[in-house]
Amino acid sequence: MPSYHPPIRDMQFLLHEVFGAVATLKGLPAHADTDADTLNAVLEEGGKFASQVTAPLNLSGDAEGCTLDQQSHEVRAPQGFKQAYQQYVAGGWPSLSCDPAYGGQGLPLVLNQCIYEMLNSANQAWTMYPGLSHGAYEALHAHGTPAQKATYLPRLTSGEWTGTMCLTEPHCGTDLGLLRSKAEPIPDGAAEASFRLTGEKIFISAGEHDLAANIVHLVLARLPDAPAGSKGISLFVVPKFLVNADGSLGDRNRIFCSGLEHKMGIHGNATCQMRLDGAVGTLVGAPHKGLAAMFVMMNAARLGVGTQSLGLTEVAYQNAVAYARDRIQMRSLSGTKAPTLAADPIIVHPDVRKMLLTARAYAEGGRAMLMFTALQLDVLVSSADEQEKKEADDTVALLTPIIKAFITDNGWTATSACLQVFGGHGYVHGSGMEQFVRDARINMIYEGTNTIQSLDLLGRKVLGDNGAKLKRFGQRIAEFVDEEGVNEAMQEFINPLADLGDKLTKLTTEIGMKAFGNADEVGAAAVDYLRVVGHLCFAYFWARMAKIALDQQGSGDPLYTAKLATARFYYAKLLPETASLIRSARSGVASLMAMDESLF
Amino acid sequence: MPSYHPPIRDMQFLLHEVFGAVATLKGLPAHADTDADTLNAVLEEGGKFASQVTAPLNLSGDAEGCTLDQQSHEVRAPQGFKQAYQQYVAGGWPSLSCDPAYGGQGLPLVLNQCIYEMLNSANQAWTMYPGLSHGAYEALHAHGTPAQKATYLPRLTSGEWTGTMCLTEPHCGTDLGLLRSKAEPIPDGAAEASFRLTGEKIFISAGEHDLAANIVHLVLARLPDAPAGSKGISLFVVPKFLVNADGSLGDRNRIFCSGLEHKMGIHGNATCQMRLDGAVGTLVGAPHKGLAAMFVMMNAARLGVGTQSLGLTEVAYQNAVAYARDRIQMRSLSGTKAPTLAADPIIVHPDVRKMLLTARAYAEGGRAMLMFTALQLDVLVSSADEQEKKEADDTVALLTPIIKAFITDNGWTATSACLQVFGGHGYVHGSGMEQFVRDARINMIYEGTNTIQSLDLLGRKVLGDNGAKLKRFGQRIAEFVDEEGVNEAMQEFINPLADLGDKLTKLTTEIGMKAFGNADEVGAAAVDYLRVVGHLCFAYFWARMAKIALDQQGSGDPLYTAKLATARFYYAKLLPETASLIRSARSGVASLMAMDESLF
Repeated sequence: MPSYHPPIRDMQFLLHEVFGAVATLKGLPAHADTDADTLNAVLEEGGKFASQVTAPLNLSGDAEGCTLDQQSHEVRAPQGFKQAYQQYVAGGWPSLSCDPAYGGQGLPLVLNQCIYEMLNSANQAWTMYPGLSHGAYEALHAHGTPAQKATYLPRLTSGEWTGTMCLTEPHCGTDLGLLRSKAEPIPDGAAEASFRLTGEKIFISAGEHDLAANIVHLVLARLPDAPAGSKGISLFVVPKFLVNADGSLGDRNRIFCSGLEHKMGIHGNATCQMRLDGAVGTLVGAPHKGLAAMFVMMNAARLGVGTQSLGLTEVAYQNAVAYARDRIQMRSLSGTKAPTLAADPIIVHPDVRKMLLTARAYAEGGRAMLMFTALQLDVLVSSADEQEKKEADDTVALLTPIIKAFITDNGWTATSACLQVFGGHGYVHGSGMEQFVRDARINMIYEGTNTIQSLDLLGRKVLGDNGAKLKRFGQRIAEFVDEEGVNEAMQEFINPLADLGDKLTKLTTEIGMKAFGNADEVGAAAVDYLRVVGHLCFAYFWARMAKIALDQQGSGDPLYTAKLATARFYYAKLLPETASLIRSARSGVASLMAMDESLF
Repeated sequence: MPSYHPPIRDMQFLLHEVFGAVATLKGLPAHADTDADTLNAVLEEGGKFASQVTAPLNLSGDAEGCTLDQQSHEVRAPQGFKQAYQQYVAGGWPSLSCDPAYGGQGLPLVLNQCIYEMLNSANQAWTMYPGLSHGAYEALHAHGTPAQKATYLPRLTSGEWTGTMCLTEPHCGTDLGLLRSKAEPIPDGAAEASFRLTGEKIFISAGEHDLAANIVHLVLARLPDAPAGSKGISLFVVPKFLVNADGSLGDRNRIFCSGLEHKMGIHGNATCQMRLDGAVGTLVGAPHKGLAAMFVMMNAARLGVGTQSLGLTEVAYQNAVAYARDRIQMRSLSGTKAPTLAADPIIVHPDVRKMLLTARAYAEGGRAMLMFTALQLDVLVSSADEQEKKEADDTVALLTPIIKAFITDNGWTATSACLQVFGGHGYVHGSGMEQFVRDARINMIYEGTNTIQSLDLLGRKVLGDNGAKLKRFGQRIAEFVDEEGVNEAMQEFINPLADLGDKLTKLTTEIGMKAFGNADEVGAAAVDYLRVVGHLCFAYFWARMAKIALDQQGSGDPLYTAKLATARFYYAKLLPETASLIRSARSGVASLMAMDESLF
């Protein structure tokens, strides 16, 4: 069975040494009394919960999966999931970074980010049950009526109830404009105007389960007078059990799980087909403006998906290292390393190290990028300075599609490399390694496929504002390059970083020019482009980490030695991918569109 | 459920137009009467068997898996597998390219190669049952005593019995020198000296099943006087049922399946833990020379594994194309393409085409390389000219690790890309897409991990003979470059091909020089190096295919239009990977070995 050790020290390195999180947070009114000890203590406790409560349920949850009772439409999560969730609620974890106005603890989002990384390392399938609630919480917090907030937010905050996002239908996923579910006004509804919803939804994560007393579905549907396409979609809140005026649970609402998907991975999470058969709901936000409200959930969810793959990368790495130290096989090509053993531990072999370091560099780079972004979110949510808020908003908008796609693609590469370290033993269930790979695969698909992320980045976030957001983020890098350009020891990082920045600027201009002539040039280059920007971000964060590590080489703390070695590995072996990506991107659309559809 | 259409026309293109297989085969005494019509007719029939008999069992076989009766030690393959195998035997398929001296049909290996590609597209798990027999057949054919040949070869040829390779033990896979299974001589054995074998084997594909009357296990074990390490390993043939002098089945031999592995994929194939508890066997080849005899099986098996991933790449491609034509979602960025539909088919989107063409270019490139190699095997086995035999042997030796590793890595990339085309629908079992990915994952591991293949290529096949084999293959490419260098239309292929050839020569020299100082430089560069050579091979075969396609552009046959477009795609979007690989390889071993083991 795989093991998991929360990477608390690395999180502290990033929080306190790289990003100076406490100082940033103290500058925000809501977090003025932040102190490092509290952050550290919560990290420790969160790590304990993940490693002791949910990690032991990961393998068994995968083997058992979820079961649907076709008569009652009730779904049972795997053994132990409900008890773990009760413990999670009792520990107050759901409320960690929620609004104190609704019972939340109001702690910073960057802390929640760390907790979620650990939960996902321990058990992605389990973590999706509380994880999905966040989207519903955010959407209602931003767009709900006072009555909706009063009814739902305290219970989502406490974790008594969980939430879902009901978007996808059999014929539409990416293209929500094709959505068919309907919402009819109920003439004599309750205090709040009510609607009766009908339709079929699929791929609803945590759509039905036995962990919580009620499930708050956020559902996209069309009002009777809705215009066609994506401008005619409204958002509704549809609880599994209707809620009485006194807050107690009322009748079972007519939204049912009609089937469970049998999937490649995340077996412990119930992926539901949902039938709305006249279910009662209320409108969230303005009529026909559902997509805007939904994007509040979606953006949070995209960062959450990046966090899922970060978690899997870390845990796969840890287990592959343990195996590579323990498993003896063949002698080192450069001479016996363990003469008292019948063979050397496989960690002596350069390519085994390459696979391990790939996972390590992607895990630590991803952690840096996600923590940086979460801290920007804290600024965005809590700053009193409008200019600062706006800049944080732009940064988060730019980085969100990169985090979603780059980190999940890396997670696929990394978990597969860690499986490979185990050889045949990684291909069998008991090792847990193949489960990490299967679980990681969905992260490249849901909450907008990675192709959609790349179009969002290149089309909307970069070309859509003439590169303004990218330029602003580029300024951060340029400032760092200027500062460290005089530092001899940093040249090995600064030079390639600055070089890649220049290349990206040229590439962006080139694609922008070509796109004037043919919009398909954007679609042809976008995926390669996103990976180039992803590497620029990772190179920047790795250089910042290397800077601290270099400064601390005299300290004797092995963290800095390892950090510097991993930074050098990243620059030597992973960053060079940009050479191919830029060539591929520059080759443009011609070779993709030349072949007639009938010839495929 | 996925569908499968045998790519007969593309196989004919390669056989007849690119490789002129009939002329080559006619030059070999054993195949002097080859004619194109026979080859084509066998391809058609093989395609029918694969698509009609075994393809329909792929999804159900995955869902059902194999079951072991712990009392009787018998394993039941999934429903329908046995009947399909009986039909396969009745059709004479096992004997296709076997030696007529033992009842074989003596047809060329290149034909068998095509049949196996189709069988693997249809159902990799099923195909492993007959597939494993080939290794046992080859080893006994090359190293068996006359009595062993008489006893086993006719029944392996007919398919009445199947075979296995029992190599791996819990503590040794790559490092067979650590092997512990023992063979004790039986003082008053039968006509042939007999041995009693004890030990534990794991990961034995098709180790026990209900498809055939007997199973012929080829087992590695140590004789009592064996030297330690890999020079003390002998090969034995150990049948499930002992065989009486008249050829009838005798007592159940003491080799039992003690457990089945629960795996990520290939669920329909029984991956067995085998216990030898005094099982009776006879020696194959010389004492302590078992690894040499085993390598006869292993080399055939490595080409077989490349063929498995070729098959999966092709079938995943076909299904992704069908889905991309059918699924409508969003409008083309360059303007509506299907105005009568609510959205455009997703095949209009450049990145969807990129994913499809990646799979197509890898499938067709892999098919070319495997058919070329199989034809070289025909020359190696059947030529009367020793010089020609030697050259074919060198070519096969060089290409075998590339086929095993490059084509299986590509298969992983391609099947995952095809899953991605399906979005969430590809992540659920019913589509079949996620099964292709799970099945493809094992191919990078078994029969020598892909890292081991890369060390075999760079360490043994290239540096081990001072680049002689590589140079000889390079001459083929140089001749083609010289011939086509004057052809204006071919410049787009010839220039990058020649350029990559030059870069590879430099890279090889550089690594060779560095390896003098530190043998770990080989291990650090090998995996990148193998992919560079793989791309050189693919670029060569794609250029040869493009040449024919260019010549035939006036013919009106759409195959040539598609072939040329795919060649251009390969050169524009996939070949550039070499830029990154060369950079990574050249960065050497330092960044891999700097970190102390304790710091991982």
